[in-house]
Amino acid sequence: MTNLSILGTGNMGQAIAAVAAKGGHSVQQLGENDLDTAVRGDVVVLAVPYPAVSAVVALRGDQLAGKIVVDITNPLNFETFDSLVVPADSSAAAEIAAALPQSRVLKAFNTTFAGTLAAGTVGPLTTTVLIAGDDSDAKSVLAGIVTSGGLNAIDAGALKRARELEALGFLQLTLAANEKVSWTGGFGVIA
Amino acid sequence: MTNLSILGTGNMGQAIAAVAAKGGHSVQQLGENDLDTAVRGDVVVLAVPYPAVSAVVALRGDQLAGKIVVDITNPLNFETFDSLVVPADSSAAAEIAAALPQSRVLKAFNTTFAGTLAAGTVGPLTTTVLIAGDDSDAKSVLAGIVTSGGLNAIDAGALKRARELEALGFLQLTLAANEKVSWTGGFGVIA
Repeated sequence: MTNLSILGTGNMGQAIAAVAAKGGHSVQQLGENDLDTAVRGDVVVLAVPYPAVSAVVALRGDQLAGKIVVDITNPLNFETFDSLVVPADSSAAAEIAAALPQSRVLKAFNTTFAGTLAAGTVGPLTTTVLIAGDDSDAKSVLAGIVTSGGLNAIDAGALKRARELEALGFLQLTLAANEKVSWTGGFGVIA
Repeated sequence: MTNLSILGTGNMGQAIAAVAAKGGHSVQQLGENDLDTAVRGDVVVLAVPYPAVSAVVALRGDQLAGKIVVDITNPLNFETFDSLVVPADSSAAAEIAAALPQSRVLKAFNTTFAGTLAAGTVGPLTTTVLIAGDDSDAKSVLAGIVTSGGLNAIDAGALKRARELEALGFLQLTLAANEKVSWTGGFGVIA
């Protein structure tokens, strides 16, 4: 059993909490009214929109030292829906890793809509969570949580690959926003 | 019926030719020994590896004026398999469009392995071809070829989205190279 803390109570945070609970893990979920409550999980999921990450890091950076921190964001320009707000050769995950040098930062969950995490399926496929990061042990811990919750997990490589995961998440969001796919569809992975 | 020319006789060129032929379209396929043969198709698929594109453009640029040109490349650094060789904020498709200002350039087929184009399926799903481009009519023509050949087609937006399609193609290639997915698997699209 892993102790998980999820910062954020939106659709994504709730869906990830349900996956972890289904896998028998301990879940602490903290929202905007819990700013004085310390995170106790060994794995901390930043389930907040990208614009809110910097405030979370500022508030809780010290608490996150030594922990596995999971960035799930899609750093879109939500006004134009036509670009990312991070540098083209970087990623939100790389920025977060730079801001949290004492944490092991992973990118995950940004390529799965909340609906496909909650359902456990995307169309006829089991939902697959793509995980990028530079620490193999940390990736294994998160993959264990994901698979114990009934989903598939794939190691997508080093944290550098977060750039491609964020491009994929961005593309998928534009397809859903333009009604090319539904919010319960999108990309599935066939092994 | 559309007249299609495919430059390149590799796995991808053959698979795209088969899709078009299945849809009842006329296909001219040209290889390395056909440099003196003019392209006659209204739609021309550049089914050559990215490093060969510039030579094709130099040789046939004049012939491609007025035509729909389809870039299918994944511009990877194939020595490292760890980055793309185009600028991070651009794409191979954008470069080709700049080099062929009198053509209507589309990005397509780079997110589907040859095996899934040939089979028409990826796992339990019908193979989906994602098409990006700035000319809606050109996208419709290509989508018509794809769907008449039994595949799904999705308009993925403006040519600017080729950046994300190339990131997706890159990610998928790294997953296959690392045996996380097979060369007959990869990403499928659930509408």
